[in-house]
Amino acid sequence: MLTRIDHVGIACRDLNRAIAFYEATFGLSVASRERNEDQGVIEAMLRVADAPAGTSYVQLLEPLGPDTPVGRFLAQRGEGVHHVGYGVADITAALEAVGAAGVRLIDSRPRHGSMGASIAFLHPKDVGGVLTELVQAAETA
Amino acid sequence: MLTRIDHVGIACRDLNRAIAFYEATFGLSVASRERNEDQGVIEAMLRVADAPAGTSYVQLLEPLGPDTPVGRFLAQRGEGVHHVGYGVADITAALEAVGAAGVRLIDSRPRHGSMGASIAFLHPKDVGGVLTELVQAAETA
Repeated sequence: MLTRIDHVGIACRDLNRAIAFYEATFGLSVASRERNEDQGVIEAMLRVADAPAGTSYVQLLEPLGPDTPVGRFLAQRGEGVHHVGYGVADITAALEAVGAAGVRLIDSRPRHGSMGASIAFLHPKDVGGVLTELVQAAETA
Repeated sequence: MLTRIDHVGIACRDLNRAIAFYEATFGLSVASRERNEDQGVIEAMLRVADAPAGTSYVQLLEPLGPDTPVGRFLAQRGEGVHHVGYGVADITAALEAVGAAGVRLIDSRPRHGSMGASIAFLHPKDVGGVLTELVQAAETA
């Protein structure tokens, strides 16, 4: 079902500073920068590697305010990995299969993610403590 | 410098149960299962996807006891993402470059990781709260 590790989503307090760090230290470059009111973040996708099944990114997330999911995460746990996103070829079919396997879906229907992707989150309590996102990239959406 | 997301390392209390979950829910399969006394874990690498630069895995980690890095992580934070491993072509050169960029190295010299890889950890306080691992796969080591 999973075609790649699409991205690792990392919560940060200062997006510009985090981007500058990943650029200077690891040589990554920004593929996309967006404001997502729905998720309460400004974010950047930094390309790690391309592969036949799609690209892998580091996703840096700065909350729009303290009363957002990433804002609460920062207050509770500090900066660090917020979620993991896996690529799928067909997000509707994947959600159906994962739901049938007993995992609660935060998003029972896909919504808009970074770079035009269709995305959905799974409940971390049902995925071993990992907030898990499924991603159907825009090219195949 | 980074060639891929090599793996996401996930701390779990029961390795067999975590493996069974990822197999049944996401269709992943175990590529390798090892006991690493040095890191105080039993672990499994589950293949997500192959790509020209190497394979991406979910790495499941069960501590050998409470007084190990992963045991302490579980006690403090519960199950969840423990670290992120990125592929590099030359780990010695990568460590030198990352160290020169001001990141403290937990391992100043590479040590043995999963599946014969050479690996080294970077200090999470210098990488935005993310325990970060560099991985030179065995094929290129």
